[in-house]
Amino acid sequence: MLSRSDRGLAYGDGLFETLRVSADGRVPLWPRHRARMLAGARRLAIPLTEDRLERTLAARLRDHDGGAGVIKLVLTRGSGGRGYLPPERPQPTLFGQWFPFTEEPCAHLRHGVEIGLCDTVLPDDPLAGLKHLNRLPQVVARAEAGRRGWREGLLLDRHRCPVEATSMNLFAVFGDLLWTPSLERAGVAGVARGWLLDVARDQGWRVEVRARPLSHLRRADGIFLTNSIVGLLPVRKLAQWTWPVDPQVPQWQRLWQARFNH
Amino acid sequence: MLSRSDRGLAYGDGLFETLRVSADGRVPLWPRHRARMLAGARRLAIPLTEDRLERTLAARLRDHDGGAGVIKLVLTRGSGGRGYLPPERPQPTLFGQWFPFTEEPCAHLRHGVEIGLCDTVLPDDPLAGLKHLNRLPQVVARAEAGRRGWREGLLLDRHRCPVEATSMNLFAVFGDLLWTPSLERAGVAGVARGWLLDVARDQGWRVEVRARPLSHLRRADGIFLTNSIVGLLPVRKLAQWTWPVDPQVPQWQRLWQARFNH
Repeated sequence: MLSRSDRGLAYGDGLFETLRVSADGRVPLWPRHRARMLAGARRLAIPLTEDRLERTLAARLRDHDGGAGVIKLVLTRGSGGRGYLPPERPQPTLFGQWFPFTEEPCAHLRHGVEIGLCDTVLPDDPLAGLKHLNRLPQVVARAEAGRRGWREGLLLDRHRCPVEATSMNLFAVFGDLLWTPSLERAGVAGVARGWLLDVARDQGWRVEVRARPLSHLRRADGIFLTNSIVGLLPVRKLAQWTWPVDPQVPQWQRLWQARFNH
Repeated sequence: MLSRSDRGLAYGDGLFETLRVSADGRVPLWPRHRARMLAGARRLAIPLTEDRLERTLAARLRDHDGGAGVIKLVLTRGSGGRGYLPPERPQPTLFGQWFPFTEEPCAHLRHGVEIGLCDTVLPDDPLAGLKHLNRLPQVVARAEAGRRGWREGLLLDRHRCPVEATSMNLFAVFGDLLWTPSLERAGVAGVARGWLLDVARDQGWRVEVRARPLSHLRRADGIFLTNSIVGLLPVRKLAQWTWPVDPQVPQWQRLWQARFNH
C-alpha cells in the first residue's frame, strides 16, 4: 500500500521501469534499466542511489524464486512539499511489483501485427525520453487503439511526425539503414530501442535517429516496434499501407531471445 | 492508504480538486468544483456519479466538524487494465484529504507579490482545462520558482504566450476590459477564474479570453493571479516590469471574501 499523499499519485512526480525477467530469474537488460532510472532521478532531482535500486530489485527477485515474469519498479518523490513545490529533503518511495509474463503470440512475432494511427496527438514533453509517471496521453491513445481493435496505436507529434506507439518504440529498415524517430520533443527512450541501436551499430548498420514525416514510412522495406517485454514486433499493416517482415527482423529477434534463454 | 497498482499512481490516470472550506464549514464554490470534476471524469471515461462525489465531500466535512480548511478530492480510474489500456469496467478510487488553511499574508493580498518568468515551457496538453493528475511540468516549474525565491512562476507556452502561473490563473485589467489567457492548448480552467469571469460579466465588464503574447502584459493597468484557495492575488512585479494594484482588485477581493465569511 501507498500513502494517499504520495506525490507519485498527486502529480505523477516519479518514474517507472518495466523489466522482463527470464525463466532462470535473470534480468538481462538490467544495466540499461538501472541507468535510465538513475538518469531520470537525477533529472527530476529525486535522490536515488544505485545501491537502493539494486537492493529493491534483488528483494523482488528473491520473492519470486525463479520463473519468467515482469517486474515493475516505481520511484516517486514520496510525500511532502507545499503543493507542487517539492520538499527540500525528499524521502523517495521505491518499490517493485511482480507481474506474470505473457508471451506475445508467435504469429504476431513472425508475421507482424496490424496497428492503427491514433487521433490522439502526442504533445511535446519537456521531460521527453524519461519514463515518468505522467502517462495520460498514452492512456487516452491506448483506449482509442483498444476501441478500434488494434494491437497498438501509432502516435504522431504536432508536426505529424511519428514518435512511438503507445507502449513501444518505432523502427523502419531502408536497405542498409535502420531508422528510428528522435525523441527530443516527446516519447520514451525505450531500453529495447537502446539495445537494438547498439546491436545494429556493432553490426555495421547505418543508423538514423531523426524526426521524419509519416509519409517516410511508406518507402520502408519493413517496420517494427520494440519494447523491453516483447522485444521486436513486426508491423504488417498500418492504415492503408502494408509491409513484408524484413528478413533482418527475425535475426534481431533471435539475438533478443538469446539474451533471455541460455 | 492506496493500492500500489492504482492507475492514479501508475499513469496519473485521474483528476483532483482543491476546495477551500470556510470557518463555518461550508464550501462556497462546491458547485463549480463538482461540475469540473464531473466533466473531467466524463472526458476521461471514469465513471462517477454526482451522488458519490457529494457523499465523499460530506464525509470529509463531518470528520472536521467546523473550522477553515482545505479539502483535496482525488479521483482515479482505480486498478486494473492491461498496461495503459483502461479496464472495461473501472472501479474508480475517490477520496478526500483535509489540509489546514494557510492564510495568504495580508501584505501580499494588498500590495501584490513579485513573480518570475519560468524557463520551463508549458507543453500543449490534449486534456487542457482539466485538473488531471499529470502535473510534472508544474512540479518542475514550481521548483524553479522556489529556487529563485518567487511566490509564483509564470508559465509561457511554446508561442511565448503566458498561460498561467504554476498553481494560479492569470488576469490583467486594461481600462474596462478584463483579460485572461484562453486555455485551449494548455492550463487548468480554475474555479476562481470561472467565478471571476462570471462576476465581471455580471458587472458589465468587457471580458477577453484569448491567447496574447507576453508583451501584452506590459500595457496592463494591473495584473493578478487567482486560485480557489487564495482568491485574487495582485502581482506588483514580473521580471523588469511593475504594476500598481488596480483599484478594481480590492473590490473583487471583498466579493470573494464575502463568499467565505457570513
